[in-house]
Amino acid sequence: MILGKVVGTIVSSTINDGIKGSRYLLVEKTDQYGKKLGDYLVALDIIGVANDELVMVTEGSPSRETPETVSKPVDALIVGIVDLIDENETVVYSK
Amino acid sequence: MILGKVVGTIVSSTINDGIKGSRYLLVEKTDQYGKKLGDYLVALDIIGVANDELVMVTEGSPSRETPETVSKPVDALIVGIVDLIDENETVVYSK
Amino acid sequence: MILGKVVGTIVSSTINDGIKGSRYLLVEKTDQYGKKLGDYLVALDIIGVANDELVMVTEGSPSRETPETVSKPVDALIVGIVDLIDENETVVYSK
Amino acid sequence: MILGKVVGTIVSSTINDGIKGSRYLLVEKTDQYGKKLGDYLVALDIIGVANDELVMVTEGSPSRETPETVSKPVDALIVGIVDLIDENETVVYSK
Amino acid sequence: MILGKVVGTIVSSTINDGIKGSRYLLVEKTDQYGKKLGDYLVALDIIGVANDELVMVTEGSPSRETPETVSKPVDALIVGIVDLIDENETVVYSK
Repeated sequence: MILGKVVGTIVSSTINDGIKGSRYLLVEKTDQYGKKLGDYLVALDIIGVANDELVMVTEGSPSRETPETVSKPVDALIVGIVDLIDENETVVYSK
Repeated sequence: MILGKVVGTIVSSTINDGIKGSRYLLVEKTDQYGKKLGDYLVALDIIGVANDELVMVTEGSPSRETPETVSKPVDALIVGIVDLIDENETVVYSK
Repeated sequence: MILGKVVGTIVSSTINDGIKGSRYLLVEKTDQYGKKLGDYLVALDIIGVANDELVMVTEGSPSRETPETVSKPVDALIVGIVDLIDENETVVYSK
Repeated sequence: MILGKVVGTIVSSTINDGIKGSRYLLVEKTDQYGKKLGDYLVALDIIGVANDELVMVTEGSPSRETPETVSKPVDALIVGIVDLIDENETVVYSK
Repeated sequence: MILGKVVGTIVSSTINDGIKGSRYLLVEKTDQYGKKLGDYLVALDIIGVANDELVMVTEGSPSRETPETVSKPVDALIVGIVDLIDENETVVYSK
């Protein structure tokens, strides 16, 4: 999984994903300190994430392994909002 | 998913993909502002995209998760035409 | 899918792929003009491609989605020989 | 598989992975000598790894091929703690 | 598939792969001439490869498509030992 911050929304009325009311977010990758890295991807949000929240994103086939995404053409999924990250016993990120 | 603009068509009469009348497009990756990045891929189009439209592309195995592409050797699929992108509450791309 | 030109053959008598008479080709990636990029991969050929032909290659799991490759350990498959590529309404490659 | 050292923990109370008590670790990639490379990923730990241990990480779909991760949206899994690495008949890493 | 030379062994007594007696090798990627490129990965060996042999490695999900690796968390598999490579009708590598 990778870390990223939600920075925007992609609207596509023609989306052919078979998911009712799917919501695609623009995610900017970050390091473990929440610092943005200037590298972006589009990920499906099924948990309701707010702008600027730090999230974990699953990429590739495993994105399909939730009840909402099974057998859907989705290759990036936000799986959780990060509360806290520690590195070498020190808290380096806190929500 | 990644963002890209359709810039061309690939014609292959010998294509061995098992998809009747499959249409492969040359897609140039873009950023969220629709700016082309000089990086290209070939993606299957099953929704009917016109030249220069901004699209969302799914890569890898999830490309097979539509009725048209199930069990087909396709690793990149155009899943939707982008209408609008907002970044930090500002519209940065509009069709 | 990516574009590439066939530049050679890989012979492996011990190949453990379960495909009878499998033929692996050395493919050099190209841009949409057929210009070689100095980046190589090994792909399975099941359609009979000649040296220097421009081909489309599927990567990853979707490579297994043909009758010949189903349930086989193949991660790159030549799916078609390219006849023609147009970019912005201009033919940029022709066989 | 890739090699990496465990350097931290990611806490996400909202994680939507369907795995009870899942534990995600921050892993810094290393070379075969255990030297850290400054490149990080988040991987699921189901074997109980301690901080600074050198581990093998499986990426992508195969991460789901354990009883704990089957049909789960996990794209990186710690599969083992490395005891020893030899390179050209010389031990280059030992736990 | 990619080309690489076997340069070492990874020993992990705690490996959680469900494969009895699995053997993981350190593989250094090479070009088609067998020249080492300084880029490494860890791959499962089920055919019995010796040190310094040039091999073909399958990556990702297709690694699971052998009787020994089916439903196992393996993302890189040595599928064959290379006997010969020709490029543009010239033999550029021979075992």
